[in-house]
Amino acid sequence: MTPATAGASSGQPLTQQGIRRRNLALVLHSVAAEGPLSRAAVAQRIGLTRAAVSSLVDELARAGLLVELGPEPSGGVGRPGSALMLSDRGPAGIGAEIGVDHLSVAAVDLRGTVRARATARADNRGRPPGPVLAELAALIARTGDAVRAQGLRPAGVTVAVPGLVARDTHTVGRAPNLGWSDVDLGADLRDGPRLTVENEANLGALAELWLGDAPALRDFIHVSAEIGVGAAVVVDGTLLRGTHGYAGELGHVPVRPDGPPCACGGSGCLEQYAGEEAVLRAAGLAPSRRPVDLLAERAAAGDRDVLGALHGAGAALGIALAGAVNLLDPRAVVLGGALSRLSPWLVPSLERELTRRTADPQRPDLTVSRLGPEGPLLGAAHSVVRGVLDDPVAYTSTTGASPDALGP
Amino acid sequence: MTPATAGASSGQPLTQQGIRRRNLALVLHSVAAEGPLSRAAVAQRIGLTRAAVSSLVDELARAGLLVELGPEPSGGVGRPGSALMLSDRGPAGIGAEIGVDHLSVAAVDLRGTVRARATARADNRGRPPGPVLAELAALIARTGDAVRAQGLRPAGVTVAVPGLVARDTHTVGRAPNLGWSDVDLGADLRDGPRLTVENEANLGALAELWLGDAPALRDFIHVSAEIGVGAAVVVDGTLLRGTHGYAGELGHVPVRPDGPPCACGGSGCLEQYAGEEAVLRAAGLAPSRRPVDLLAERAAAGDRDVLGALHGAGAALGIALAGAVNLLDPRAVVLGGALSRLSPWLVPSLERELTRRTADPQRPDLTVSRLGPEGPLLGAAHSVVRGVLDDPVAYTSTTGASPDALGP
Repeated sequence: MTPATAGASSGQPLTQQGIRRRNLALVLHSVAAEGPLSRAAVAQRIGLTRAAVSSLVDELARAGLLVELGPEPSGGVGRPGSALMLSDRGPAGIGAEIGVDHLSVAAVDLRGTVRARATARADNRGRPPGPVLAELAALIARTGDAVRAQGLRPAGVTVAVPGLVARDTHTVGRAPNLGWSDVDLGADLRDGPRLTVENEANLGALAELWLGDAPALRDFIHVSAEIGVGAAVVVDGTLLRGTHGYAGELGHVPVRPDGPPCACGGSGCLEQYAGEEAVLRAAGLAPSRRPVDLLAERAAAGDRDVLGALHGAGAALGIALAGAVNLLDPRAVVLGGALSRLSPWLVPSLERELTRRTADPQRPDLTVSRLGPEGPLLGAAHSVVRGVLDDPVAYTSTTGASPDALGP
Repeated sequence: MTPATAGASSGQPLTQQGIRRRNLALVLHSVAAEGPLSRAAVAQRIGLTRAAVSSLVDELARAGLLVELGPEPSGGVGRPGSALMLSDRGPAGIGAEIGVDHLSVAAVDLRGTVRARATARADNRGRPPGPVLAELAALIARTGDAVRAQGLRPAGVTVAVPGLVARDTHTVGRAPNLGWSDVDLGADLRDGPRLTVENEANLGALAELWLGDAPALRDFIHVSAEIGVGAAVVVDGTLLRGTHGYAGELGHVPVRPDGPPCACGGSGCLEQYAGEEAVLRAAGLAPSRRPVDLLAERAAAGDRDVLGALHGAGAALGIALAGAVNLLDPRAVVLGGALSRLSPWLVPSLERELTRRTADPQRPDLTVSRLGPEGPLLGAAHSVVRGVLDDPVAYTSTTGASPDALGP
């Protein structure tokens, strides 16, 4: 389907108001991708007239989203252009993460710079949701104060959770690592700007899409792991969420259908071979509070049992991913989260299985994320400012930022 | 992302010309979905003014895409409305299918009515492409003549092939059932209207999307089989093609990683348990020219070996599909093609594995396609007329249908 007809079959009307909203977003994305840019350069890139762009830029500047760097020397004829940049005193995106052993919050500005951080060590396994969320709310409030003191305005909070989140809700359906089930985060965290709750694997994948080393990479499977094994699928730059929001459950792809029983009711799921508990067990180690650190240290020291366990986990990952690659034909498979730290010992057997079980043209690149365990938190914070870039009118109309600009 | 900002991040300009193209498509889709409709009813549905819709309707009528049924009695005040319908004397979509034992061609009009058909029995296994394509070209030409005699104009030809087609090419990369490899269909078939070459499983899934029993079903995995096992994934009403166009290779998802070697280089792939040759072998039967007929007859007669083989194939399908469901969280799994005929004997074991290996909220519906082996051919023909509905300007400007209307 060509861009001109996108959405035609879904029957969405294209009103003047909708076109204006879309063009405001186009200007912001253009400056975000290539700024600083002059108005003329923006006009050329998005295919609108200079006059139309100037009117849009003025509105975005009044709303505090764009700033002008002042006149710059002109090499040619005509009035010198003033370079535009995204504001570093406009909206801030707040990302928060509930981990099994920590709570973290980070705030980024429109340019993507981290402006404030807060972290607390905590043992959240089996801890009831109330105290965890109260502690997280305090960290979020402190981070909000810190960015306000820098002249920024929090535009929303996105919380990364190690569990399944039903689509378009604030409810964590199942988070076995925390021992939570059907916990609504809305009641405890909604006392602030717009709240979004999202699976951490999804946010890790979005971070890779927005901040990863390969800016043109728009089709990939992102695999991460804590106790379970999570994944997220990005197709043409869009996260594949699934009907219920539960897509990406790579941990329950059958690897050996007659293998050990899994908590999900199945047997021989990937999690039984590549989840942290399974790897510790295969290595003959007792459960540990920091299993990735332990495994990495022992593997680096040449512990044969640990090396064997990681070899087996890599092979199981390769078998499950071979199925995913045959189904989805992605450009790349990216190992993120805790897997990035263990990748030196996982990749050889993973790559071997993946290579022999996929045919030549569709064999994907296998890469390790540079973001590592930071991915979900950064993805959460960036998802808020991405939301502002995608629809600046929604931002100004809900925050009431500048009542005279970008009104609904 | 809201409809208003769709495409904003990809930086596509929204020109007046693009908006006009999109609105022409919106009018056509609205009449296609709910016609006959008056101009006022179309205006209400797509959110444009009555005057704007009238201008668009006039252009579409001049281009031969819409017809007016004449004034209808008005129940209220004002000028009686004239009901609009898609033309049944406008463009025709020609679908063609290369099967292992047949060549088929069908033409549909904009309303989706089949207006002409042609079929030839042929044994295409191992037959060189030249004679096959010459015979197919003759069937396509005969079908084109038949619709032209009814006042229709062929708008394009889509060919369904039992093999992988590299994205945006006319080249069949691998079609093991035919024994073809790297065959460019363009040279032999391009002597006519616009040509598209597409994998048959993809077209079967699109037929299910457009013509299936569940009109609201927009997220599903469609599974079909001939000698191999093919599948296609539809997400939010769009076919997931994959980076190279090779998505949907369910047949090479590992079911038992240490199982029998597969021609793909892997081992224990689904095809080794649920492909026709594997099922015949498991049932102790010699290779057959019409394996599905043979298996269905024997199963209906209660042949224990055949029933056991189909039971095993169903279980393997269920294991592979459980992995796909965990990854993609679709609303439904649809069995189409040859599998629909064998479904009475495949479904019990398939459903058992699928149920125990997927968790409750994301467990999908399991349905059998009513289209059966007709799916790919109908999907091919319909894909051509869908293309006209999606972008009527592209149709009129390439066919030169009405040079005074809808010019580029």
